[in-house]
Amino acid sequence: MQRYFVESLNWDQSHVYINSDDVHHIVNVMRMVEGNKLICVHPNEGAAVCSILQIEGSEQVVCKIEEWITQDIELPVKVTVVQSLGKGDKVEQVVQKGTELGADSFIPFQADRSVAKWDAKKSDKKIHRLEKIAKEASEQSERTSIPSVKKLMKINEIVSLEGYDYKILAYEGEARNGYSETIKIIFGKVKPGDSIIVVFGPEGGFSDKEVETFLQSGFQSIRLGPRILRMETAPLYFLSALSYQLEE
Amino acid sequence: MQRYFVESLNWDQSHVYINSDDVHHIVNVMRMVEGNKLICVHPNEGAAVCSILQIEGSEQVVCKIEEWITQDIELPVKVTVVQSLGKGDKVEQVVQKGTELGADSFIPFQADRSVAKWDAKKSDKKIHRLEKIAKEASEQSERTSIPSVKKLMKINEIVSLEGYDYKILAYEGEARNGYSETIKIIFGKVKPGDSIIVVFGPEGGFSDKEVETFLQSGFQSIRLGPRILRMETAPLYFLSALSYQLEE
Repeated sequence: MQRYFVESLNWDQSHVYINSDDVHHIVNVMRMVEGNKLICVHPNEGAAVCSILQIEGSEQVVCKIEEWITQDIELPVKVTVVQSLGKGDKVEQVVQKGTELGADSFIPFQADRSVAKWDAKKSDKKIHRLEKIAKEASEQSERTSIPSVKKLMKINEIVSLEGYDYKILAYEGEARNGYSETIKIIFGKVKPGDSIIVVFGPEGGFSDKEVETFLQSGFQSIRLGPRILRMETAPLYFLSALSYQLEE
Repeated sequence: MQRYFVESLNWDQSHVYINSDDVHHIVNVMRMVEGNKLICVHPNEGAAVCSILQIEGSEQVVCKIEEWITQDIELPVKVTVVQSLGKGDKVEQVVQKGTELGADSFIPFQADRSVAKWDAKKSDKKIHRLEKIAKEASEQSERTSIPSVKKLMKINEIVSLEGYDYKILAYEGEARNGYSETIKIIFGKVKPGDSIIVVFGPEGGFSDKEVETFLQSGFQSIRLGPRILRMETAPLYFLSALSYQLEE
Protein backbone atom coordinates (compact mmCIF):
# COMPACT_ATOMS: atom_id res chain seq x y z
CA MET A 1 0.00 0.00 0.00
CA GLN A 2 1.28 3.46 -0.87
CA ARG A 3 2.34 5.53 2.15
CA TYR A 4 2.45 9.27 2.69
CA PHE A 5 3.92 11.38 5.48
CA VAL A 6 1.38 13.94 6.68
CA GLU A 7 2.08 16.83 9.10
CA SER A 8 0.43 16.61 12.52
CA LEU A 9 -1.72 19.73 11.87
CA ASN A 10 -3.54 17.80 9.15
CA TRP A 11 -4.89 15.10 11.44
CA ASP A 12 -7.98 15.01 13.64
CA GLN A 13 -9.38 12.11 15.65
CA SER A 14 -10.73 10.23 12.66
CA HIS A 15 -9.52 12.01 9.50
CA VAL A 16 -6.39 12.99 7.62
CA TYR A 17 -6.35 15.99 5.27
CA ILE A 18 -3.65 15.67 2.59
CA ASN A 19 -2.97 18.96 0.80
CA SER A 20 0.74 18.77 -0.06
CA ASP A 21 2.41 17.73 -3.33
CA ASP A 22 1.19 14.26 -2.44
CA VAL A 23 -2.28 15.15 -3.77
CA HIS A 24 -0.82 15.16 -7.29
CA HIS A 25 0.87 11.82 -6.61
CA ILE A 26 -2.32 10.23 -5.26
CA VAL A 27 -4.67 11.57 -7.94
CA ASN A 28 -2.57 11.74 -11.10
CA VAL A 29 0.32 9.32 -10.59
CA MET A 30 -1.35 6.54 -8.60
CA ARG A 31 -4.79 7.36 -10.12
CA MET A 32 -6.52 6.55 -6.86
CA VAL A 33 -10.22 7.12 -6.43
CA GLU A 34 -12.62 7.44 -3.51
CA GLY A 35 -12.69 4.25 -1.47
CA ASN A 36 -9.07 3.32 -2.27
CA LYS A 37 -6.75 2.62 0.65
CA LEU A 38 -3.41 4.15 1.51
CA ILE A 39 -1.20 4.51 4.55
CA CYS A 40 -0.80 7.90 6.24
CA VAL A 41 2.12 8.38 8.60
CA HIS A 42 1.85 10.83 11.52
CA PRO A 43 5.16 12.45 12.64
CA ASN A 44 4.79 11.17 16.21
CA GLU A 45 1.92 8.72 16.30
CA GLY A 46 2.99 6.19 13.69
CA ALA A 47 1.19 4.84 10.65
CA ALA A 48 -2.50 4.28 9.93
CA VAL A 49 -4.36 2.52 7.15
CA CYS A 50 -6.79 5.09 5.68
CA SER A 51 -9.43 5.10 2.95
CA ILE A 52 -10.06 8.01 0.63
CA LEU A 53 -13.36 9.76 1.53
CA GLN A 54 -13.23 12.62 -0.92
CA ILE A 55 -10.93 14.02 -3.59
CA GLU A 56 -11.34 17.81 -3.72
CA GLY A 57 -9.91 18.60 -7.16
CA SER A 58 -6.16 19.01 -7.09
CA GLU A 59 -6.34 20.76 -3.71
CA GLN A 60 -6.98 18.18 -1.05
CA VAL A 61 -7.60 14.51 -0.40
CA VAL A 62 -9.67 13.72 2.68
CA CYS A 63 -9.06 10.30 4.21
CA LYS A 64 -10.79 8.33 6.95
CA ILE A 65 -8.55 6.59 9.48
CA GLU A 66 -9.43 2.90 9.36
CA GLU A 67 -6.83 1.33 11.59
CA TRP A 68 -3.57 2.25 13.30
CA ILE A 69 -0.63 -0.01 12.47
CA THR A 70 0.94 -1.12 15.70
CA GLN A 71 3.89 -3.18 14.50
CA ASP A 72 7.03 -1.26 15.34
CA ILE A 73 9.47 -1.24 12.48
CA GLU A 74 11.80 1.41 13.84
CA LEU A 75 15.29 0.40 15.01
CA PRO A 76 14.98 0.41 18.84
CA VAL A 77 18.20 2.42 19.22
CA LYS A 78 18.71 5.97 17.93
CA VAL A 79 21.76 6.03 15.66
CA THR A 80 23.30 9.30 14.50
CA VAL A 81 25.51 8.67 11.48
CA VAL A 82 28.32 11.21 11.10
CA GLN A 83 29.40 10.84 7.48
CA SER A 84 32.55 12.44 6.10
CA LEU A 85 32.08 14.13 2.74
CA GLY A 86 33.29 11.97 -0.15
CA LYS A 87 33.47 11.85 -3.91
CA GLY A 88 30.45 11.83 -6.20
CA ASP A 89 27.13 10.81 -4.66
CA LYS A 90 28.53 8.77 -1.77
CA VAL A 91 26.90 10.84 1.00
CA GLU A 92 23.58 10.54 -0.86
CA GLN A 93 24.03 6.75 -1.02
CA VAL A 94 24.71 6.60 2.72
CA VAL A 95 21.60 8.67 3.53
CA GLN A 96 19.39 6.59 1.21
CA LYS A 97 20.54 3.17 2.35
CA GLY A 98 21.19 4.26 5.96
CA THR A 99 17.54 5.37 6.12
CA GLU A 100 16.38 1.96 4.87
CA LEU A 101 18.54 0.36 7.54
CA GLY A 102 17.02 2.44 10.34
CA ALA A 103 19.32 5.43 11.07
CA ASP A 104 17.78 8.21 13.20
CA SER A 105 19.80 11.16 11.88
CA PHE A 106 22.73 12.12 9.68
CA ILE A 107 25.46 14.73 10.16
CA PRO A 108 27.65 15.58 7.14
CA PHE A 109 31.25 16.03 8.30
CA GLN A 110 33.99 18.07 6.62
CA ALA A 111 36.93 15.75 7.39
CA ASP A 112 40.59 16.67 6.85
CA ARG A 113 40.85 14.31 3.89
CA SER A 114 37.35 14.90 2.42
CA VAL A 115 37.88 15.51 -1.28
CA ALA A 116 34.56 17.38 -1.59
CA LYS A 117 34.19 20.78 0.06
CA TRP A 118 30.81 22.39 0.70
CA ASP A 119 30.66 26.17 0.98
CA ALA A 120 27.75 27.84 2.80
CA LYS A 121 25.59 28.19 -0.30
CA LYS A 122 26.24 24.69 -1.61
CA SER A 123 25.71 23.29 1.88
CA ASP A 124 22.08 24.47 2.16
CA LYS A 125 21.24 22.99 -1.21
CA LYS A 126 22.96 19.70 -0.40
CA ILE A 127 21.22 19.36 2.98
CA HIS A 128 17.87 20.03 1.34
CA ARG A 129 18.58 17.30 -1.22
CA LEU A 130 19.63 14.85 1.50
CA GLU A 131 16.41 15.57 3.41
CA LYS A 132 14.43 14.72 0.29
CA ILE A 133 16.37 11.47 -0.15
CA ALA A 134 15.71 10.55 3.50
CA LYS A 135 11.98 11.23 3.10
CA GLU A 136 11.70 9.11 -0.05
CA ALA A 137 13.74 6.27 1.43
CA SER A 138 11.56 6.30 4.58
CA GLU A 139 8.46 5.94 2.46
CA GLN A 140 9.99 3.22 0.31
CA SER A 141 11.16 1.19 3.32
CA GLU A 142 7.80 1.72 5.08
CA ARG A 143 9.30 3.48 8.09
CA THR A 144 7.17 5.48 10.50
CA SER A 145 9.71 8.29 10.97
CA ILE A 146 12.01 10.30 8.71
CA PRO A 147 15.65 10.68 9.75
CA SER A 148 16.78 14.29 10.18
CA VAL A 149 19.77 15.69 8.32
CA LYS A 150 21.79 18.17 10.40
CA LYS A 151 23.99 20.97 9.08
CA LEU A 152 27.56 20.34 7.93
CA MET A 153 29.85 20.15 10.97
CA LYS A 154 33.54 20.36 11.76
CA ILE A 155 35.30 18.10 14.23
CA ASN A 156 35.12 20.55 17.16
CA GLU A 157 31.33 20.73 16.78
CA ILE A 158 30.97 16.95 16.60
CA VAL A 159 33.05 16.19 19.69
CA SER A 160 31.04 18.74 21.69
CA LEU A 161 27.68 17.07 20.92
CA GLU A 162 26.17 15.62 24.08
CA GLY A 163 23.64 13.10 25.27
CA TYR A 164 24.82 9.91 23.56
CA ASP A 165 25.14 6.62 25.42
CA TYR A 166 27.80 5.36 22.98
CA LYS A 167 30.32 7.38 20.95
CA ILE A 168 32.03 5.32 18.26
CA LEU A 169 34.77 5.90 15.70
CA ALA A 170 34.74 3.45 12.77
CA TYR A 171 38.44 3.45 12.14
CA GLU A 172 39.67 1.42 9.19
CA GLY A 173 43.16 1.22 10.69
CA GLU A 174 41.54 -1.18 13.16
CA ALA A 175 40.59 -3.63 10.39
CA ARG A 176 44.28 -3.86 9.52
CA ASN A 177 45.31 -4.38 13.15
CA GLY A 178 43.35 -7.59 13.28
CA TYR A 179 42.52 -6.96 16.89
CA SER A 180 40.55 -4.30 18.72
CA GLU A 181 37.33 -4.07 20.67
CA THR A 182 34.74 -5.42 18.30
CA ILE A 183 31.29 -3.98 17.77
CA LYS A 184 29.90 -7.26 19.09
CA ILE A 185 31.03 -6.30 22.59
CA ILE A 186 29.43 -2.86 22.29
CA PHE A 187 26.25 -4.05 20.57
CA GLY A 188 25.91 -6.74 23.23
CA LYS A 189 25.57 -3.99 25.85
CA VAL A 190 23.24 -1.68 23.91
CA LYS A 191 19.64 -1.58 25.22
CA PRO A 192 16.46 -0.38 23.48
CA GLY A 193 16.14 3.37 23.97
CA ASP A 194 19.92 3.97 23.95
CA SER A 195 21.50 6.44 21.56
CA ILE A 196 24.68 6.01 19.51
CA ILE A 197 26.75 8.50 17.55
CA VAL A 198 29.14 6.89 15.05
CA VAL A 199 31.68 8.62 12.80
CA PHE A 200 32.76 7.28 9.39
CA GLY A 201 35.82 8.53 7.50
CA PRO A 202 36.29 9.72 3.90
CA GLU A 203 38.01 7.75 1.09
CA GLY A 204 41.47 8.51 2.42
CA GLY A 205 40.57 7.67 6.01
CA PHE A 206 40.88 9.90 9.06
CA SER A 207 43.99 12.02 9.66
CA ASP A 208 46.10 11.12 12.70
CA LYS A 209 45.00 14.37 14.29
CA GLU A 210 41.33 13.52 13.85
CA VAL A 211 41.78 10.04 15.34
CA GLU A 212 43.54 11.60 18.32
CA THR A 213 40.83 14.25 18.80
CA PHE A 214 37.99 11.72 18.67
CA LEU A 215 39.70 9.29 21.04
CA GLN A 216 40.51 12.06 23.53
CA SER A 217 36.86 13.14 23.40
CA GLY A 218 35.63 9.76 24.55
CA PHE A 219 34.97 8.08 21.21
CA GLN A 220 35.76 4.35 21.11
CA SER A 221 37.56 3.07 18.06
CA ILE A 222 36.11 -0.10 16.52
CA ARG A 223 36.60 -2.22 13.43
CA LEU A 224 33.87 -3.52 11.12
CA GLY A 225 35.03 -7.01 10.23
CA PRO A 226 38.42 -7.98 8.83
CA ARG A 227 38.04 -6.56 5.31
CA ILE A 228 38.63 -2.93 4.35
CA LEU A 229 35.25 -1.41 3.45
CA ARG A 230 34.61 1.52 1.14
CA MET A 231 33.48 4.71 2.88
CA GLU A 232 29.89 4.23 1.73
CA THR A 233 29.76 0.53 2.70
CA ALA A 234 30.95 0.92 6.30
CA PRO A 235 27.77 2.63 7.64
CA LEU A 236 25.63 -0.06 5.99
CA TYR A 237 27.63 -2.80 7.71
CA PHE A 238 27.28 -1.01 11.05
CA LEU A 239 23.50 -0.53 10.78
CA SER A 240 22.89 -4.04 9.38
CA ALA A 241 24.85 -5.62 12.22
CA LEU A 242 22.97 -3.53 14.82
CA SER A 243 19.61 -4.47 13.29
CA TYR A 244 20.66 -8.13 13.25
CA GLN A 245 21.70 -7.92 16.92
CA LEU A 246 18.57 -6.14 18.18
CA GLU A 247 15.76 -6.88 15.76
CA GLU A 248 16.20 -10.39 14.43
CA MET B 1 50.16 -1.01 0.67
CA GLN B 2 49.07 -1.52 -2.94
CA ARG B 3 48.04 -5.10 -3.76
CA TYR B 4 48.09 -7.01 -7.01
CA PHE B 5 46.67 -10.40 -7.97
CA VAL B 6 49.31 -12.47 -9.76
CA GLU B 7 48.70 -15.79 -11.55
CA SER B 8 50.28 -18.87 -9.97
CA LEU B 9 52.60 -19.45 -12.99
CA ASN B 10 54.36 -16.19 -12.13
CA TRP B 11 55.55 -17.30 -8.70
CA ASP B 12 58.60 -19.29 -7.64
CA GLN B 13 59.83 -20.03 -4.12
CA SER B 14 61.14 -16.55 -3.45
CA HIS B 15 60.06 -14.31 -6.35
CA VAL B 16 57.01 -12.95 -8.12
CA TYR B 17 57.16 -11.90 -11.79
CA ILE B 18 54.50 -9.33 -12.65
CA ASN B 19 54.00 -8.92 -16.40
CA SER B 20 50.30 -8.06 -16.75
CA ASP B 21 48.64 -4.63 -17.10
CA ASP B 22 49.67 -4.14 -13.50
CA VAL B 23 53.20 -3.24 -14.65
CA HIS B 24 51.81 0.00 -16.06
CA HIS B 25 49.97 0.64 -12.79
CA ILE B 26 53.06 0.00 -10.66
CA VAL B 27 55.50 1.99 -12.79
CA ASN B 28 53.47 4.84 -14.24
CA VAL B 29 50.47 5.28 -11.96
CA MET B 30 51.98 4.49 -8.56
CA ARG B 31 55.47 5.60 -9.73
CA MET B 32 57.10 2.89 -7.65
CA VAL B 33 60.82 2.29 -7.84
CA GLU B 34 63.18 -0.54 -6.91
CA GLY B 35 63.05 -1.21 -3.17
CA ASN B 36 59.39 -0.13 -2.80
CA LYS B 37 57.01 -2.58 -1.17
CA LEU B 38 53.74 -3.96 -2.42
CA ILE B 39 51.48 -6.93 -1.71
CA CYS B 40 51.20 -9.77 -4.23
CA VAL B 41 48.28 -12.15 -3.93
CA HIS B 42 48.61 -15.77 -5.07
CA PRO B 43 45.38 -17.42 -6.30
CA ASN B 44 45.61 -20.23 -3.75
CA GLU B 45 48.38 -19.40 -1.31
CA GLY B 46 47.21 -16.02 -0.02
CA ALA B 47 49.01 -12.70 0.18
CA ALA B 48 52.67 -11.81 0.61
CA VAL B 49 54.49 -8.56 1.26
CA CYS B 50 57.07 -8.16 -1.54
CA SER B 51 59.76 -5.63 -2.44
CA ILE B 52 60.58 -4.59 -5.99
CA LEU B 53 63.93 -6.07 -7.09
CA GLN B 54 63.98 -4.89 -10.68
CA ILE B 55 61.79 -2.98 -13.11
CA GLU B 56 62.38 -4.28 -16.64
CA GLY B 57 61.06 -1.39 -18.75
CA SER B 58 57.32 -1.63 -19.27
CA GLU B 59 57.53 -5.43 -19.61
CA GLN B 60 58.00 -6.90 -16.19
CA VAL B 61 58.44 -6.10 -12.51
CA VAL B 62 60.42 -8.66 -10.50
CA CYS B 63 59.60 -8.77 -6.80
CA LYS B 64 61.22 -10.55 -3.87
CA ILE B 65 58.84 -12.24 -1.41
CA GLU B 66 59.54 -10.71 2.00
CA GLU B 67 56.83 -12.23 4.16
CA TRP B 68 53.59 -14.16 3.80
CA ILE B 69 50.56 -12.57 5.43
CA THR B 70 48.86 -15.14 7.59
CA GLN B 71 45.83 -13.26 8.90
CA ASP B 72 42.75 -14.73 7.29
CA ILE B 73 40.40 -12.07 6.08
CA GLU B 74 38.07 -14.30 4.06
CA LEU B 75 34.53 -14.91 5.31
CA PRO B 76 34.68 -18.46 6.77
CA VAL B 77 31.51 -19.49 4.92
CA LYS B 78 31.16 -19.63 1.14
CA VAL B 79 28.20 -17.48 0.09
CA THR B 80 26.78 -17.62 -3.43
CA VAL B 81 24.67 -14.53 -4.09
CA VAL B 82 21.95 -15.07 -6.70
CA GLN B 83 21.02 -11.56 -7.77
CA SER B 84 17.96 -10.81 -9.90
CA LEU B 85 18.61 -8.36 -12.72
CA GLY B 86 17.45 -4.84 -11.87
CA LYS B 87 17.42 -1.31 -13.20
CA GLY B 88 20.54 0.74 -13.91
CA ASP B 89 23.77 -0.40 -12.26
CA LYS B 90 22.20 -2.26 -9.35
CA VAL B 91 23.76 -5.63 -10.13
CA GLU B 92 27.14 -3.89 -10.43
CA GLN B 93 26.61 -2.29 -7.01
CA VAL B 94 25.77 -5.67 -5.47
CA VAL B 95 28.89 -7.29 -6.95
CA GLN B 96 31.12 -4.42 -5.83
CA LYS B 97 29.84 -4.14 -2.27
CA GLY B 98 29.10 -7.86 -1.93
CA THR B 99 32.77 -8.52 -2.75
CA GLU B 100 33.88 -6.11 -0.04
CA LEU B 101 31.58 -7.92 2.37
CA GLY B 102 33.03 -11.34 1.57
CA ALA B 103 30.81 -13.09 -1.00
CA ASP B 104 32.33 -16.15 -2.70
CA SER B 105 30.44 -16.00 -6.00
CA PHE B 106 27.62 -14.25 -7.84
CA ILE B 107 24.95 -15.62 -10.18
CA PRO B 108 22.90 -13.10 -12.20
CA PHE B 109 19.27 -14.25 -12.32
CA GLN B 110 16.66 -13.40 -14.95
CA ALA B 111 13.62 -13.15 -12.64
CA ASP B 112 10.01 -12.90 -13.85
CA ARG B 113 9.81 -9.25 -12.81
CA SER B 114 13.36 -8.23 -13.78
CA VAL B 115 13.02 -5.02 -15.77
CA ALA B 116 16.39 -5.53 -17.46
CA LYS B 117 16.81 -8.37 -19.97
CA TRP B 118 20.19 -9.67 -21.07
CA ASP B 119 20.43 -11.36 -24.46
CA ALA B 120 23.30 -13.77 -25.18
CA LYS B 121 25.61 -11.10 -26.61
CA LYS B 122 24.92 -8.52 -23.90
CA SER B 123 25.26 -11.21 -21.27
CA ASP B 124 28.90 -12.03 -22.11
CA LYS B 125 29.84 -8.37 -21.98
CA LYS B 126 28.00 -7.83 -18.70
CA ILE B 127 29.60 -10.86 -17.03
CA HIS B 128 33.01 -9.69 -18.14
CA ARG B 129 32.35 -6.27 -16.63
CA LEU B 130 31.11 -7.81 -13.36
CA GLU B 131 34.27 -9.95 -13.18
CA LYS B 132 36.36 -6.79 -13.49
CA ILE B 133 34.35 -5.09 -10.74
CA ALA B 134 34.82 -8.13 -8.47
CA LYS B 135 38.58 -8.10 -9.09
CA GLU B 136 38.93 -4.40 -8.33
CA ALA B 137 36.75 -4.62 -5.22
CA SER B 138 38.82 -7.60 -3.97
CA GLU B 139 41.98 -5.57 -4.30
CA GLN B 140 40.46 -2.51 -2.68
CA SER B 141 39.13 -4.49 0.29
CA GLU B 142 42.43 -6.41 0.61
CA ARG B 143 40.85 -9.82 0.07
CA THR B 144 42.95 -12.86 -0.79
CA SER B 145 40.49 -14.31 -3.30
CA ILE B 146 38.34 -12.93 -6.10
CA PRO B 147 34.66 -13.97 -6.21
CA SER B 148 33.61 -15.69 -9.41
CA VAL B 149 30.73 -14.44 -11.53
CA LYS B 150 28.70 -17.24 -13.13
CA LYS B 151 26.63 -17.06 -16.29
CA LEU B 152 23.10 -15.64 -16.30
CA MET B 153 20.68 -18.32 -15.07
CA LYS B 154 16.98 -19.03 -15.12
CA ILE B 155 15.06 -20.41 -12.14
CA ASN B 156 15.19 -24.05 -13.29
CA GLU B 157 18.98 -23.87 -13.47
CA ILE B 158 19.26 -22.28 -10.03
CA VAL B 159 17.05 -24.78 -8.23
CA SER B 160 19.03 -27.65 -9.74
CA LEU B 161 22.39 -26.40 -8.36
CA GLU B 162 23.71 -28.80 -5.76
CA GLY B 163 26.13 -29.03 -2.86
CA TYR B 164 24.92 -26.19 -0.62
CA ASP B 165 24.46 -26.63 3.13
CA TYR B 166 21.85 -23.85 3.25
CA LYS B 167 19.47 -22.67 0.51
CA ILE B 168 17.82 -19.35 1.32
CA LEU B 169 15.19 -17.12 -0.29
CA ALA B 170 15.26 -13.48 0.86
CA TYR B 171 11.59 -12.79 0.48
CA GLU B 172 10.41 -9.26 1.19
CA GLY B 173 6.88 -10.47 1.83
CA GLU B 174 8.33 -11.89 5.04
CA ALA B 175 9.35 -8.43 6.30
CA ARG B 176 5.69 -7.42 6.06
CA ASN B 177 4.51 -10.54 7.88
CA GLY B 178 6.38 -9.49 10.97
CA TYR B 179 7.07 -13.08 11.79
CA SER B 180 9.01 -15.83 10.11
CA GLU B 181 12.14 -17.83 10.73
CA THR B 182 14.82 -15.21 11.15
CA ILE B 183 18.33 -15.36 9.76
CA LYS B 184 19.56 -15.37 13.36
CA ILE B 185 18.34 -18.93 13.76
CA ILE B 186 20.03 -20.01 10.52
CA PHE B 187 23.26 -18.04 11.09
CA GLY B 188 23.42 -19.48 14.61
CA LYS B 189 23.71 -22.97 13.07
CA VAL B 190 26.19 -22.13 10.29
CA LYS B 191 29.73 -23.48 10.83
CA PRO B 192 33.00 -22.39 9.20
CA GLY B 193 33.41 -24.29 5.95
CA ASP B 194 29.67 -24.40 5.23
CA SER B 195 28.23 -23.09 1.98
CA ILE B 196 25.13 -20.97 1.45
CA ILE B 197 23.21 -20.04 -1.67
CA VAL B 198 20.87 -17.07 -1.24
CA VAL B 199 18.47 -15.57 -3.78
CA PHE B 200 17.48 -11.87 -3.88
CA GLY B 201 14.53 -10.53 -5.88
CA PRO B 202 14.25 -7.64 -8.36
CA GLU B 203 12.58 -4.25 -7.67
CA GLY B 204 9.09 -5.67 -8.02
CA GLY B 205 9.80 -8.71 -5.83
CA PHE B 206 9.45 -12.36 -6.76
CA SER B 207 6.38 -13.63 -8.61
CA ASP B 208 4.17 -16.04 -6.70
CA LYS B 209 5.27 -18.79 -9.07
CA GLU B 210 8.93 -18.14 -8.30
CA VAL B 211 8.32 -18.19 -4.55
CA GLU B 212 6.49 -21.51 -4.92
CA THR B 213 9.24 -23.03 -7.07
CA PHE B 214 12.03 -22.00 -4.68
CA LEU B 215 10.16 -23.23 -1.61
CA GLN B 216 9.34 -26.57 -3.25
CA SER B 217 13.02 -26.95 -4.14
CA GLY B 218 14.09 -26.78 -0.52
CA PHE B 219 14.83 -23.06 -0.22
CA GLN B 220 13.95 -21.53 3.16
CA SER B 221 12.25 -18.16 3.10
CA ILE B 222 13.66 -15.56 5.51
CA ARG B 223 13.24 -11.89 6.30
CA LEU B 224 16.01 -9.33 6.71
CA GLY B 225 14.80 -7.15 9.56
CA PRO B 226 11.44 -5.38 9.80
CA ARG B 227 12.00 -2.69 7.16
CA ILE B 228 11.54 -3.17 3.42
CA LEU B 229 15.00 -3.02 1.80
CA ARG B 230 15.80 -2.02 -1.76
CA MET B 231 16.95 -4.87 -4.01
CA GLU B 232 20.57 -3.71 -3.86
CA THR B 233 20.55 -3.21 -0.07
CA ALA B 234 19.24 -6.66 0.90
CA PRO B 235 22.41 -8.64 -0.05
CA LEU B 236 24.54 -6.14 1.89
CA TYR B 237 22.39 -6.63 5.00
CA PHE B 238 22.67 -10.41 4.63
CA LEU B 239 26.46 -10.43 4.22
CA SER B 240 27.03 -7.82 6.95
CA ALA B 241 24.92 -9.79 9.42
CA LEU B 242 26.76 -13.02 8.55
CA SER B 243 30.14 -11.35 8.98
CA TYR B 244 29.00 -9.90 12.30
CA GLN B 245 27.83 -13.33 13.46
CA LEU B 246 30.95 -15.25 12.43
CA GLU B 247 33.82 -12.80 12.30
CA GLU B 248 33.33 -10.22 15.02
